[in-house]
Amino acid sequence: MVSKTKITVRYAETDRMGIAHHSNYAVWFEAARTDFIKQTGIGYGQMEERGLLAPLLELTCRFIAPAYYEDELIVTARVTKLTPVKMEFSYEVFREGEKKPLATGKTLHGLVGRDMKPFHIKKDMPDIYEKLQMTVQPEEESK
Amino acid sequence: MVSKTKITVRYAETDRMGIAHHSNYAVWFEAARTDFIKQTGIGYGQMEERGLLAPLLELTCRFIAPAYYEDELIVTARVTKLTPVKMEFSYEVFREGEKKPLATGKTLHGLVGRDMKPFHIKKDMPDIYEKLQMTVQPEEESK
Amino acid sequence: MVSKTKITVRYAETDRMGIAHHSNYAVWFEAARTDFIKQTGIGYGQMEERGLLAPLLELTCRFIAPAYYEDELIVTARVTKLTPVKMEFSYEVFREGEKKPLATGKTLHGLVGRDMKPFHIKKDMPDIYEKLQMTVQPEEESK
Amino acid sequence: MVSKTKITVRYAETDRMGIAHHSNYAVWFEAARTDFIKQTGIGYGQMEERGLLAPLLELTCRFIAPAYYEDELIVTARVTKLTPVKMEFSYEVFREGEKKPLATGKTLHGLVGRDMKPFHIKKDMPDIYEKLQMTVQPEEESK
Repeated sequence: MVSKTKITVRYAETDRMGIAHHSNYAVWFEAARTDFIKQTGIGYGQMEERGLLAPLLELTCRFIAPAYYEDELIVTARVTKLTPVKMEFSYEVFREGEKKPLATGKTLHGLVGRDMKPFHIKKDMPDIYEKLQMTVQPEEESK
Repeated sequence: MVSKTKITVRYAETDRMGIAHHSNYAVWFEAARTDFIKQTGIGYGQMEERGLLAPLLELTCRFIAPAYYEDELIVTARVTKLTPVKMEFSYEVFREGEKKPLATGKTLHGLVGRDMKPFHIKKDMPDIYEKLQMTVQPEEESK
Repeated sequence: MVSKTKITVRYAETDRMGIAHHSNYAVWFEAARTDFIKQTGIGYGQMEERGLLAPLLELTCRFIAPAYYEDELIVTARVTKLTPVKMEFSYEVFREGEKKPLATGKTLHGLVGRDMKPFHIKKDMPDIYEKLQMTVQPEEESK
Repeated sequence: MVSKTKITVRYAETDRMGIAHHSNYAVWFEAARTDFIKQTGIGYGQMEERGLLAPLLELTCRFIAPAYYEDELIVTARVTKLTPVKMEFSYEVFREGEKKPLATGKTLHGLVGRDMKPFHIKKDMPDIYEKLQMTVQPEEESK
């Protein structure tokens, strides 16, 4: 499963170099993640209300070519790893209609409860774990 | 009472016009408000933990001259109105060492509880209300 | 002429009060402005390339009810004043499907050249001035 | 050479999880980079005015423990690699007075001209290259 999220580069997201500032990519990845989770039929907001938080442990982003104001972007997201305590998402950012990504990235998340301690998703939310498990697409296979 | 907060314009805060994007002024006003509240000896974080939130009802900002990357700014804050249910702050943004403000603004806040309903600060937190009351400096007097 | 822009509240746009932080509304207004300008057939990026910038002179925003993570919002924009040197936009933010706005606002822009000095849009870009002129919808009439 | 930048976590930087949102770390790294460059006696703004830009090629960040509203943070920056076309910075984010970092990160930058093509810093800005060269502190040595 791969989700696709449409993003239009906002003026506020540009910097004095005239390009979209790099800190926005983490925000766009997150918008893509929101859409991915929603597509599984769960909703990230709902997950949080049931007590499961997924704070970031690691973020990596590779910037290949700049994005500009008013560019229409497509951000893809997929789950590339899932264990009972961690989850990895991979992303690609494209200018609409182009085949070469402008940027790629990964985020690794801990699965924790409201107390920021590990949450046993497999045991405590088996429905959500199973749904996520079905979407996993390891890196190698996705090439 | 007037508080003074030092802000250095960040690269991420600039836009493709080459100036600090206008949406940052609301964030700087808030940093100034945080310092003002801290200066009264309370701490805004503490206030929230005791159940008092102060969400924005109105924001106005007048932009007189642009601020640029690496500019050292001084943001002043003071309370210009206080009632048992509302509170108004006024701000001025200066480039360090200059007398003419780059921007001025006001924020009007509701005083509510965690349920977003009015909070009777005068009755339920008389210590904080009194401290804030002492800082009020109506517009006219401050000229 | 009124434009309508769809915004989904991002996680990064929320704050520790659990609501969309007020500084985002200025960014959403700008996204709406971008769509409005594009709808006239011009494109704000193009306008800037032809040498016309429209920096903010004033921003006012009234916050009526909070927006939350994942909320689908509609931001309307229209031009409520236009002179050869200034332009005013008015906005309303709605949760999709609702009739009462969550927020309303206005932005007043100067029309300047790259040197930040007044730009005679009426004389130097009569095509754009005329297009914008046709869209003006003063406050009173819009009620 | 290591620079130290003081950051106070802003309310706008928190998210509905109650912690500083991860996208801010890239912004704080950049503020630290600005201070580092200034400390060499150059000034990043000046570098850009002389035609040298340093857009991001890669960003990695490891989040160890959350930062909260009003936390006083220290962000350290140092140059860990420098070639005539690329430059790597490494960062650590500490809560003031603590020894274990809340986060660590790296940014890899291309050295390019205004046309986004490689800029021969060693040849075209020997003064700046030399100054930066003197600050390099490879990873191993810094432990």
